[in-house]
Amino acid sequence: MGSEVTLQDVAERAGLSLATASRVLNGGKRVVAAASTARILQAAEELGYVSNGPAQALARSTTAVVGLIVHEVDDPYFATIAKGAMRVASAHGLLTTLANTFGDQDLEVDYVQRLQAQRVRALLLAGSPRLADDQQARLNSALERFIRGGGRVAVVGDHRGPYSAVLPANRRGAAQVARHLFDLRHRRIGIISGPAHLTTVHERLTGFTDAWVDLGGTPDDITVADGDFSRDGGYSAMIQLVERAPEASAVFALNDLMAIGALAALHDDLGRDVPGDVSVVGFDDLWMTVDLRVPLTTVRLPLEAMGTRAMEMLVGADAAVGPQQARMPADLVVRASTGPAPVSS
Amino acid sequence: MGSEVTLQDVAERAGLSLATASRVLNGGKRVVAAASTARILQAAEELGYVSNGPAQALARSTTAVVGLIVHEVDDPYFATIAKGAMRVASAHGLLTTLANTFGDQDLEVDYVQRLQAQRVRALLLAGSPRLADDQQARLNSALERFIRGGGRVAVVGDHRGPYSAVLPANRRGAAQVARHLFDLRHRRIGIISGPAHLTTVHERLTGFTDAWVDLGGTPDDITVADGDFSRDGGYSAMIQLVERAPEASAVFALNDLMAIGALAALHDDLGRDVPGDVSVVGFDDLWMTVDLRVPLTTVRLPLEAMGTRAMEMLVGADAAVGPQQARMPADLVVRASTGPAPVSS
Repeated sequence: MGSEVTLQDVAERAGLSLATASRVLNGGKRVVAAASTARILQAAEELGYVSNGPAQALARSTTAVVGLIVHEVDDPYFATIAKGAMRVASAHGLLTTLANTFGDQDLEVDYVQRLQAQRVRALLLAGSPRLADDQQARLNSALERFIRGGGRVAVVGDHRGPYSAVLPANRRGAAQVARHLFDLRHRRIGIISGPAHLTTVHERLTGFTDAWVDLGGTPDDITVADGDFSRDGGYSAMIQLVERAPEASAVFALNDLMAIGALAALHDDLGRDVPGDVSVVGFDDLWMTVDLRVPLTTVRLPLEAMGTRAMEMLVGADAAVGPQQARMPADLVVRASTGPAPVSS
Repeated sequence: MGSEVTLQDVAERAGLSLATASRVLNGGKRVVAAASTARILQAAEELGYVSNGPAQALARSTTAVVGLIVHEVDDPYFATIAKGAMRVASAHGLLTTLANTFGDQDLEVDYVQRLQAQRVRALLLAGSPRLADDQQARLNSALERFIRGGGRVAVVGDHRGPYSAVLPANRRGAAQVARHLFDLRHRRIGIISGPAHLTTVHERLTGFTDAWVDLGGTPDDITVADGDFSRDGGYSAMIQLVERAPEASAVFALNDLMAIGALAALHDDLGRDVPGDVSVVGFDDLWMTVDLRVPLTTVRLPLEAMGTRAMEMLVGADAAVGPQQARMPADLVVRASTGPAPVSS
C-alpha cells in the first residue's frame, strides 16, 4: 500500500533532495525547475506515494490550496479571469478551490468562512465589490478575520480594505464610449445597467454620464433600464428601453453579455437594424464578440491578465511585500455595431 | 479571537443541535434545511467561529471538498458542466476544488494525486477519456488508488473503470448530422476533427462515418482536417479543408468552438456564403450558437444537466449504491447554417 511510502523514499528514487520533493508535493513557496518537478512526480507515482495534505496543514496552519471566488463560472468574464489565475497557481504547485456564488451575496461571506476553515493560504475575489453597505461590511470583516489568521487576499475592484487589488479602468473605458457615440452624433442614449449595488456598475455608469455632460450633453439625454449582467437580462432590458425611449439611437450595455442579449432582441423581436437604426456598445471584450451576428463595438479589458496579475500578487515572488495595486487599461474597440446616428427625416 | 469559540457555542447560540451545527459547518452527508443552515451560519459569523477543516479531515480521513477536473475552464463546454456540478456540491454544503489541465494529459494524473493528498472525498472528471493507451492506464491506476483510499469517482464519457459515468450520446448525435446533410443532398463532406486520442472525438467521428456509409455514401466522400477543439484551431482547419477538398459543400466540426472558427474563416478569409456555398454544423449547442453571424446548426447536449447528474452520483442520496451510469440525449438542432447543397452548373 502506498501509505507506507515516505517522502524520503520519493526523494531518493528521484535522486533529489527531501526539500525539493517537499516543495513539489506539498507546494512550498519556492518554484522548482520543471525537470525536477517531473522527476519527483514520476517517482511519487511509481512508488504510489500519497502525501497527507490535512496533516501538513495542521503542522503549518496552511495548505497548498488557494481560494477563488467568482459570481458565475459560466460567465466568460469570470471564466477568463479564472483561467489566468489558475495558470499562475498551477505554476506555483498550488491547487485552486473555486467557489461560485451564483450571484448570491450571502454565499460570498459564507464561502470566505468555509475556505478559511479549509485553511487555504490565500483568497482571490474576482467579483465586483458592493457599494458601501451592511453586506460589504460583513464581507470585509470576514476577510479581515482571514488576514488575521495569516491569509492573503487579492480582489478585482476596490474593496476598500488592506487587500492587493487589480483595478480595471471602468470609468475611463465608459468615458470613451460616451465620446464615441457623441462623435457619431447620437444625442439620445439608452443604457442597460447591471446590479445597482456593484461598484463596477456604478463606475461604468458614472464614467459614461460624467463624460456625456462634459461633452455638452445633459443627464436627460440618457434613459437607464435595469439588467442583471446576463444575456437574457439584456434581452428584456432592450425591449423595455424601446418602449420607454423609442427615440434613443444608441444603446450602451454595461457588459458584453447584456449587449449580446440586446442585439438578439433588436434582431429577433424588434426588427431594428444594427447599426442602421440603433448602435450597440458593450463592455469587457469577451472572445465571442467578434463572431456575433453584428461584431460588437466594446471596451477591451485584459481579462486573463487581470487573473494572472491578481494571483501573482497572492503567491508570486513579491507577495510578501504586502498589499499592492495594479491599474489595468480599458480601451474602446470599434467594430460594426456602431455607426452614425440616423438622420431624422 | 475566534479560535476559542467552539462548535457547541455556535449550536447554542443558534438554538440547534450540535449535530446540525456540525453538518452545516463541516459539510456532513445529510442535507440541512435552508432555515437551519442560515441560523447556524449567522451564529458562527456573530461569534467569529472558524472550524478547522484539516483537523476534521485527519479525524475522518476526508474533507467537505470535492475535486473537479476540466481541460479548459474558459471553454463554455466545461464552464457549463462545472456550473451544474458546483450547484449540486454547494447544495450539499461542499466546496469544489477545480483543477484545470490546460489540455495537458500529464497534469491530469498529477491532479488526481494532489487532490487525493488533500483528502477530497470525491472526484469528477469532466474531460473526455483517452482511447486505451499508457496515459489512460496511468490515469486509471491513479483513480483506483483514490478509490482504495475511500474516495468516489464520476466521469463524463466511458473511462472503462469502476466509476459512475455520464454518457452523452455522441455517436447518435453525429449520426443525425450525417442524415441531415445527406437529406440536403450534400455528397462531399469536410470534417474538422479534435484531438485524435480522445474517445469523444472517436465516437463523434465514427458515429458520422458509420451513418454516412449506411445512408449509401462512401468513406471517400469525407475529408478530415485536424483541429484541437478550440475556435482558432477550427479557423485554421477550415482553411486547410478548402485547399484539400474544395468540392466539399458541407463541413461538420466536432465541437461548436471549432465551428465558430470555421464560420469566421469562411466569412473573413475565404469569402464563402453560409449556407449558400457551404453548410456548417457543430456539436454541443453552446449558449452563444444562436447569436453568431449565422446561427449554428448543431447537436444539443444537456451540458448543465450532465454536470448536475455527475455530481449527484458522487454526493447525492443514492451515491452509496455504487457506480451508476446515466445516458444523456444528443439531439440535432437545425438553424440557419445548413441548407441544400448548391446545384452544380
